[in-house]
Amino acid sequence: MNTELKISYPGSEKVYIPGIIHPTIKVGMRKVKQMPTVVMHNGERIETPNADVYIYDTSGAYGDKNMAVDLKKGLPHVRAMWIKERMENADAKGVTQMYYAKQGIITAEMEYVAIRENMNCQQLGIETHITPQFVCNEIANGRAVIPANIKHPEAEPMIIGKNFLTKINANIGNSATTSSMTEEVEKAIWSCKWGADTIMDLSTGANIHETREWILRNSPVPIGTVPIYQAIEKVNGDIEKLTWEIYRDVLIEQCEQGVDYFTVHCGIRLKNVMLAKDRLTGIVSRGGSIISKWCLLHQQESFLYQHFDDICDIVAKYDVALSLGDGLRPGSIYDANDKAQFAELDTMGELVERAWAKHVQVFIEGPGHVPMHKIKENMERQEEKCHHAPFYTLGPLVTDIAPGYDHITAAIGAAQIGWYGTAMLCYVTPKEHLSLPNKNDVRDGVVAFKLAAHAADLAKQHPGAMVRDNAMSKARYEFRWKDQFNLSLDPERAIEYYKTTNSVGGKYCTMCGPNFCAMKISRTLCNQE
Amino acid sequence: MNTELKISYPGSEKVYIPGIIHPTIKVGMRKVKQMPTVVMHNGERIETPNADVYIYDTSGAYGDKNMAVDLKKGLPHVRAMWIKERMENADAKGVTQMYYAKQGIITAEMEYVAIRENMNCQQLGIETHITPQFVCNEIANGRAVIPANIKHPEAEPMIIGKNFLTKINANIGNSATTSSMTEEVEKAIWSCKWGADTIMDLSTGANIHETREWILRNSPVPIGTVPIYQAIEKVNGDIEKLTWEIYRDVLIEQCEQGVDYFTVHCGIRLKNVMLAKDRLTGIVSRGGSIISKWCLLHQQESFLYQHFDDICDIVAKYDVALSLGDGLRPGSIYDANDKAQFAELDTMGELVERAWAKHVQVFIEGPGHVPMHKIKENMERQEEKCHHAPFYTLGPLVTDIAPGYDHITAAIGAAQIGWYGTAMLCYVTPKEHLSLPNKNDVRDGVVAFKLAAHAADLAKQHPGAMVRDNAMSKARYEFRWKDQFNLSLDPERAIEYYKTTNSVGGKYCTMCGPNFCAMKISRTLCNQE
Repeated sequence: MNTELKISYPGSEKVYIPGIIHPTIKVGMRKVKQMPTVVMHNGERIETPNADVYIYDTSGAYGDKNMAVDLKKGLPHVRAMWIKERMENADAKGVTQMYYAKQGIITAEMEYVAIRENMNCQQLGIETHITPQFVCNEIANGRAVIPANIKHPEAEPMIIGKNFLTKINANIGNSATTSSMTEEVEKAIWSCKWGADTIMDLSTGANIHETREWILRNSPVPIGTVPIYQAIEKVNGDIEKLTWEIYRDVLIEQCEQGVDYFTVHCGIRLKNVMLAKDRLTGIVSRGGSIISKWCLLHQQESFLYQHFDDICDIVAKYDVALSLGDGLRPGSIYDANDKAQFAELDTMGELVERAWAKHVQVFIEGPGHVPMHKIKENMERQEEKCHHAPFYTLGPLVTDIAPGYDHITAAIGAAQIGWYGTAMLCYVTPKEHLSLPNKNDVRDGVVAFKLAAHAADLAKQHPGAMVRDNAMSKARYEFRWKDQFNLSLDPERAIEYYKTTNSVGGKYCTMCGPNFCAMKISRTLCNQE
Repeated sequence: MNTELKISYPGSEKVYIPGIIHPTIKVGMRKVKQMPTVVMHNGERIETPNADVYIYDTSGAYGDKNMAVDLKKGLPHVRAMWIKERMENADAKGVTQMYYAKQGIITAEMEYVAIRENMNCQQLGIETHITPQFVCNEIANGRAVIPANIKHPEAEPMIIGKNFLTKINANIGNSATTSSMTEEVEKAIWSCKWGADTIMDLSTGANIHETREWILRNSPVPIGTVPIYQAIEKVNGDIEKLTWEIYRDVLIEQCEQGVDYFTVHCGIRLKNVMLAKDRLTGIVSRGGSIISKWCLLHQQESFLYQHFDDICDIVAKYDVALSLGDGLRPGSIYDANDKAQFAELDTMGELVERAWAKHVQVFIEGPGHVPMHKIKENMERQEEKCHHAPFYTLGPLVTDIAPGYDHITAAIGAAQIGWYGTAMLCYVTPKEHLSLPNKNDVRDGVVAFKLAAHAADLAKQHPGAMVRDNAMSKARYEFRWKDQFNLSLDPERAIEYYKTTNSVGGKYCTMCGPNFCAMKISRTLCNQE
């Protein structure tokens, strides 16, 4: 493994915006410099500059050419000072962002995300609703979450909430059949390069602890896990032998290690398990199937539901956020929006209030496979039942018949539910249903979801979201090809495809050709050429 | 060039459903045979058969292993007999499907599409609104179009309308810079393999006539063109020299050759051209930019608008349908739903009524680049202004920033507008904005749009649309891997990706691995294993 990984983007420079309330804050952003617009007027060349475009940057220190990074040493501890300061002044009643927010305290993390969300707004004078105070209010009322374990000082703060930029998560992790530990670390950093806002390590095979350690120490974004995967390894796959104590120990181990959020399938009730029996595809959540089976074997409520308050007490000490896993999510169009799914959602609503009572940050996982006309009901019902805690969905996939292209079927549903208010979209790769993703699949999945999330931000009219589109379109109309590449979600692929034409660098579309270009003709109409 | 092309799909067989009103009809469909469901009960193996699934088939004779096809000879003339019979009995007042429909005559084409749209319904007893009479009514009132030039007897009838399956179009064609004639023919057949319902030949370079001839004689689906592309070649690119006479001759040449629909930019009015002057990306339609420039150069209404009735008189003789091109469609998020775009739509509404008065079938082209929250207005306004003539959109692309992935940004918008009622979706390939597509890009674009169209059909609750999804999901839950591949939109890619795992053929998900598979555990809950 090459342990000195770097991330670079063409025509871009890493810049840092300082905090005001907390001057130690340095929010990294990617600044794209543009070429000027050139017009010939009466034989004279007139240049008009085009403003820099700031891009939300998830590449961390890897994307800063002035910083040395070595995987064996891990990333710098950007949050260490803030955490230390808070711990010294802690009143022993709580350390979570929600705890501070309820008291009206604006933490460094809150100011950090406020700056991060507003790229381009300050520079271009765009009005924005996102202030540190607004962030604080949203955290206090539970409508947004900053997943930030106090034991994970390497992660750069980010916020998950309806009134913020739509985020995406990339799943990585090995299973018994494929992948190695080093590959997973590379995939994690690779995901950050393409724009993943959080990463979930879903490893189930050997070396779970070490793989996670490598990922945590080298990840600039928050890390989520599904602790039941490690618990089941501890009982050699024998579901019946799972106990609260085993699970609790796994939670504590992972809290200590620095995991930022846990998917916990606490919403599965004994009485609801058999609601899934008439389904076409049963239970498709790994955690959900394990807990359901446990409930039936023991004929009692799961230890996750019974010990939910204990779980909250544990994670509250670290400010690990809970992601209430939808163990009964539909795995097919046929099963969408059924009684099993919605019964679990009702339970989640109850759990949200219990988590908030202990100042635990919480969000809700959602489907799955849902046809387009049933997507809106998912969002509306989630908001109503779960008291506006953030929604975090897997796709949803809008048809079942496209294996090999499920990053697209899922991006279609994701864009739509993101527009309706889902705060984070879990990516799906082209290998979904078929195999575990390789690096190229991860890239395809992340970029597909990045564009879906951005489409949602445009539709939500998020402040400044259109800046990058407008810069891209202006560059397109002016045949500034390099600027187009630099502003792309995936500059490398854009350049690669562009170079397949025979006509590189021309003042015309490579689709229309030199003699017959719509934009070229259009420009002559207004004497722009 | 290999002139003996064949198309095959695994586990599939071409079957033909006969007509009742017109017994000479043979509607080709793809029948997928499934494995039985196997359950072990008290040590006994119990097999339950799974019904055959019928799939809408655009592969024509290429997909029938019993038919010899030679590109040099062209396809069999499936419609020849019907056309001949009608021409012999023609009352000289009209030959269009709309003309017959208005008299309540159910043509063979109408019955053909009724059978074609109802795959699986008859076999599974699913209620359907689509009868030959219903088709006839929809054609009569202009809500649907069967593009079927009487000089193109090779094409298998298909219908474009809101109340039918959502269709997709694939663009092919060379420009001055790339591609050769034979490649384009191969791309056409390749598009049909993956499910293109119509093909537009957008060639602009040399050999326009011969390329089109090859495509027409060998295409099992209707062919559309943009005649202005050939007209502009005739005046060596000098827009000012374009005249009605030159354009008219091109129309007649292409009518005679067998083109099934023409994109005509008749909706551009002199008074509206300058509405686009404040746009970010001006005019991005090639035809639109040419006609706009012509209007400004001559300071008069375009010959296309002025001669619209003459155009209708020409195409009515061949039953070529008109696709009213949106010359002023937005080419960026910023320009979406602007006054230029909507002014053209108003003109199109006027033209629709003029076309219908001459029994000419007509549909309307739409954008382009539109953010999600502005898509619905496009559909609603089009229906209102254009009297429910079918809508045919390019995407729309829901963001500008993803070159290299624009088949996805476009599929997101396409799925949504298809759900709202758009009848045909023009595909976009990953090379959009960057280069002309190669064969693999065509496949990616067609499949992305096929899945978007299918997602729209699910959301519209089209009769029988869910049959394939349900079969796929059942096969998935029962680990019938071969059936999953055979039912996929792209079996070859699904198999290719599946084979990247180490665990082929197992009774568990290749994502979860053998020891930890949700569906495997889920099946044990209900004693299905």
